[in-house]
Amino acid sequence: MSAKEVKSAYAQAGVNIDVKMSAVSSIKEMVASTKTINVIGGIGAFGGLYKVPEGKNMVLVSSTDGVGTKLKVAAAMKKHDTVGQDIVNHCVNDILVQGARPLFFMDYVGTAKVDPAQFKGIVSGLCKACRENHMALLGGETAEMPGLYPAGEYDLVGTIVGCVRREDIITGKSIRAGDVMIGFPSGGLQTNGFSLARRVIFDLCQYSWKDKLPGTNQTFGDALLAVHRSFLRPVAKLLDRKIKISGMAHITGGGFPDNIPRVLPKAVNA
Amino acid sequence: MSAKEVKSAYAQAGVNIDVKMSAVSSIKEMVASTKTINVIGGIGAFGGLYKVPEGKNMVLVSSTDGVGTKLKVAAAMKKHDTVGQDIVNHCVNDILVQGARPLFFMDYVGTAKVDPAQFKGIVSGLCKACRENHMALLGGETAEMPGLYPAGEYDLVGTIVGCVRREDIITGKSIRAGDVMIGFPSGGLQTNGFSLARRVIFDLCQYSWKDKLPGTNQTFGDALLAVHRSFLRPVAKLLDRKIKISGMAHITGGGFPDNIPRVLPKAVNA
Repeated sequence: MSAKEVKSAYAQAGVNIDVKMSAVSSIKEMVASTKTINVIGGIGAFGGLYKVPEGKNMVLVSSTDGVGTKLKVAAAMKKHDTVGQDIVNHCVNDILVQGARPLFFMDYVGTAKVDPAQFKGIVSGLCKACRENHMALLGGETAEMPGLYPAGEYDLVGTIVGCVRREDIITGKSIRAGDVMIGFPSGGLQTNGFSLARRVIFDLCQYSWKDKLPGTNQTFGDALLAVHRSFLRPVAKLLDRKIKISGMAHITGGGFPDNIPRVLPKAVNA
Repeated sequence: MSAKEVKSAYAQAGVNIDVKMSAVSSIKEMVASTKTINVIGGIGAFGGLYKVPEGKNMVLVSSTDGVGTKLKVAAAMKKHDTVGQDIVNHCVNDILVQGARPLFFMDYVGTAKVDPAQFKGIVSGLCKACRENHMALLGGETAEMPGLYPAGEYDLVGTIVGCVRREDIITGKSIRAGDVMIGFPSGGLQTNGFSLARRVIFDLCQYSWKDKLPGTNQTFGDALLAVHRSFLRPVAKLLDRKIKISGMAHITGGGFPDNIPRVLPKAVNA
């Protein structure tokens, strides 16, 4: 089979390789803008290449996560340039609580059929947040799965790899009763609790996305899509000044009760 | 809110945190079986920890991919212990073609509602292939997204991180006209082309999963679910014996015509 025949056979099965490939090539420049000094080569190879961090006792820290049903809000509002920021910042915080700084990010978009404008929006958000966190968008995959995803919707998944010196890993083990606890405010619901929030706001209270959030000028849609904040900058400032942090928790699904105890010694309560 | 209240609120919104947590804890032992000497700590932390590979000029190589619509076949056959092997081996091959060996793997399962037996099957496949490729399953995420995924179905995504010495990266640049080309046979369709295959076999030719593949004793379902082979063992043997490999291509979506030219210099044809 020639390349042309392969493509035409795929097209008849509902998969348009050319549309996908041209969407992928349209984002090359954006992705290139996230390139850091340690990236080797460019996009297009089978795997992304990244120089191993130098220094003694370095440890890689990795986390994978999805945006969850916040994507349902993005789909309803047809606003796709914030969810990429959500997943990047979510992952940054997940490894930051162990003291790690980001190296690179890998993304996955699963969808029924690639919509080039939507795809560009998603990737622009990924790239913006990668730049803000000094991290390369090293690679990714876009999968067209007709029949698994509803038309116009998608799942967005990210994997972060960061690093920390072994002696600087933050575990929570040294937390003692009487220690000071500091909370960083979120910009909104971050990237968890959206099934619950959607049920309360839209099903039970019958609000629409366009209704104003009582007491504010914001719509429910805008308030729900508030970008997940990265806490890299404030935490890195503390770490750079050698201010001792005994433990950190990223408040995600399960809220305070599930996440804070993950870093507390048994004898200590928050 | 107490932990109990949080869970009950989530349950009313269709997300059962306890079922998800108990499914996750039921797989702990399997995942622990993939632990390698370089993994630091256990499962349950926010991010997985892995010792940076030692040696000069080491480069990390990473790739993300999904199983694609092969998952549709697995769902129809209710057989979930092979797709994990597919995605792990797929990712292993993706970085192997650059000369890299696997270090660790991260997985993501997105589904409407976690089915513990199905989930256990998926993870058993991930773990089997991770052990076979001497790689740790370092972390993962399972997301319940009622309303995005059809009941009983799921997407399965994986990210691999491996490494190679910079001088050992295989790029294809040194390929010359007259070089010998060797093909490794696949065990079947690997993990690409399933939308096309399903359309031809089931829609156009009207076969069922249970029909025998003409000329064999295998059903179409079993033949389609044949596990994606990892080529790590044969290729590593060649590399260990310092046999020079100028270029390798992993034949995935787009087949020969799209993948072989990715590693060929412009003046060379296969």
